[in-house]
Amino acid sequence: MRHSIKPFLAIEINDRASEMEKQGIDVVRFSLGEPDFKSPKVVKNACIRAIRQDITRYEHSQGMIELRQAIAHHYRKKYRVKIGPEQILITPGTSQALFLIFSVLLKKGDRVIVPNPHYPADTNFVEYSGGEVIPHPLSEETGFHWDLSLLKKQISPKIKAIFVTSPANPTGALTTADEYRFMARTGHFIIADEIYHGLTYKGEEHTALEFTDKCFVVNGFSKAYAMTGYRLGYVIAPKKYLEAMRLIQQNFYISVTSFVQAAGVAAITQAQEDVHRMRVEFEKRRSVMLTGLKELGFPINYVPEGAFFIMANARHLSRNSLWLAGDILKKAHVAVTPGEDFGSQTRGYLRFSYATGIPRILEGLKRLKGYLSSHFVCQKL
Amino acid sequence: MRHSIKPFLAIEINDRASEMEKQGIDVVRFSLGEPDFKSPKVVKNACIRAIRQDITRYEHSQGMIELRQAIAHHYRKKYRVKIGPEQILITPGTSQALFLIFSVLLKKGDRVIVPNPHYPADTNFVEYSGGEVIPHPLSEETGFHWDLSLLKKQISPKIKAIFVTSPANPTGALTTADEYRFMARTGHFIIADEIYHGLTYKGEEHTALEFTDKCFVVNGFSKAYAMTGYRLGYVIAPKKYLEAMRLIQQNFYISVTSFVQAAGVAAITQAQEDVHRMRVEFEKRRSVMLTGLKELGFPINYVPEGAFFIMANARHLSRNSLWLAGDILKKAHVAVTPGEDFGSQTRGYLRFSYATGIPRILEGLKRLKGYLSSHFVCQKL
Repeated sequence: MRHSIKPFLAIEINDRASEMEKQGIDVVRFSLGEPDFKSPKVVKNACIRAIRQDITRYEHSQGMIELRQAIAHHYRKKYRVKIGPEQILITPGTSQALFLIFSVLLKKGDRVIVPNPHYPADTNFVEYSGGEVIPHPLSEETGFHWDLSLLKKQISPKIKAIFVTSPANPTGALTTADEYRFMARTGHFIIADEIYHGLTYKGEEHTALEFTDKCFVVNGFSKAYAMTGYRLGYVIAPKKYLEAMRLIQQNFYISVTSFVQAAGVAAITQAQEDVHRMRVEFEKRRSVMLTGLKELGFPINYVPEGAFFIMANARHLSRNSLWLAGDILKKAHVAVTPGEDFGSQTRGYLRFSYATGIPRILEGLKRLKGYLSSHFVCQKL
Repeated sequence: MRHSIKPFLAIEINDRASEMEKQGIDVVRFSLGEPDFKSPKVVKNACIRAIRQDITRYEHSQGMIELRQAIAHHYRKKYRVKIGPEQILITPGTSQALFLIFSVLLKKGDRVIVPNPHYPADTNFVEYSGGEVIPHPLSEETGFHWDLSLLKKQISPKIKAIFVTSPANPTGALTTADEYRFMARTGHFIIADEIYHGLTYKGEEHTALEFTDKCFVVNGFSKAYAMTGYRLGYVIAPKKYLEAMRLIQQNFYISVTSFVQAAGVAAITQAQEDVHRMRVEFEKRRSVMLTGLKELGFPINYVPEGAFFIMANARHLSRNSLWLAGDILKKAHVAVTPGEDFGSQTRGYLRFSYATGIPRILEGLKRLKGYLSSHFVCQKL
């Protein structure tokens, strides 16, 4: 067997939580990687309308032209970057987009700078395509932001690309204009996963496209639009690579679900108020979660600027966050994700997702408080 | 750039046809790879209901359990093979299923026997995963069936798998029980693409699973259920490989569109009458197309047993079917697919799809008659 990819610990914890729920145990999920919101009504209605109108046949392998036009317009309006529909490939989610990018970009042995911590699949994408991961360690002291002096040292002709996620999973850190500018100046490709755009609470969202054309920008509808189950994403790429990616998609996938693309048009053109409403709610939750975790003694010394995650240092409780996450689930019935899942830099951390309502966040914090007071002697820092 | 995959000629012809239609020219499409039927009402309604019920979040990466159970039940009932839902992975179409199979099965240099002619992506799947294609030439004299004495000679320890499509695109040939039995006895893996099952007009449909457990069976909802644009397929695989495929899917795709899976449950449990109705209509069209092509002098000396394609030898018109298809499109406004697209064995052939209504088939045949009488001196054989 050629490819053996390790399972995500996050999913393992979620699976165990599901098992407990089946046994009738109420579990508070701070482990979720998707919004708990329903998808916007205009989106649902557009999807239903498309099915009724029998938009149920193969679409163009590059994606529905109306959707690509809407995306191009969105980028002109929001980021003032000029891209055309011919530079966009619609994909079944951003994961597939990343798979396609690395498939066409990397030759065996090409090196890609990937932050540590990172979304677990990120290194799998690189390695599956024969690339080599050059980890760029991020630390809480700098708010999990890029270390530009280190990045300067890591730059070499062997590097093919720099892989950015902004806002980042698992830390929530937002890549700044300065960071993007620095990366652009290296002359390497930037691969920017911007799927959490729209969910930023501090600072300004920038797309890599503002700083260079030598980039692949990945985005989609799962997070800001609460459309995870639709499976709809896209990549904006240099034309030369776009055509190669389209041909792989045509071979391995044919086209993206047709009526889902119609739903995407409605999302981008009619659901901005919904996006705003959810963002406001996420911001409130973030505040409740941050305050609560600090009160429980977690020394959180950075500002998670976006997405819906907080990385909390839990080394005062245990160096082994996989054990700790398991123990918390078992004893407090709260599911959290061990930091190990995201790389060595966040060993001993726990990832808290606030993609769940405030009453549940408060309930989870209460349970954690009970757990900590029963099992640890903790002092507020 | 690592992967450059050539475009399908079929799609090129279809794109040219679309261009002509945009200019107001009426084109008869004998080039379609998908049913022209609307998807069944029960399927549409189930999909709409699922969206209304907010089944719009990530599903399990292996696929919705209800769908896997329905598929397992279908296989027990139709083929009398006992498979469990744990052996099934739901995929976004059969193409993705094939990509996953070759990803986990092949090591660099592993050989796979692939019929010639074959669906154009088939060899791409093998080569993308580092495998080597061993072509198995099929010819019209044997109805494009497997040549078992040749197959016997091709068997060697270097062969990893035999790749079967039944009923086949582009020929419509149905793999017989004897052929499957012979393949099973070789001890090699059988990879059986059975996506056209349900569209068989002569002979009995068999699944590879009746003859061996050492097989990967790929199937889906696109053809018999007229659900191409939904993107829903599945693979039935040995457990060892299934888990590896599931992990790749989890990384590269996360899960299949949730409400589409609910539609799949309705298809398999409630749409069998629709499948029957469409099959009966396809059978009528097949008869009209076969008779018509023979009357036009195409020497069709085999019985296309399933799918919705007829491969017609057109060497009496030209050895270059790519030119011929282009000329027919330009002069007769009929789109057909050049045999070159499917391999060297069908150079000089044209593929006629009857996935379009009888009045259009008759119109297309009329146009072809005019084209032939203006440009060729033809005699009925």
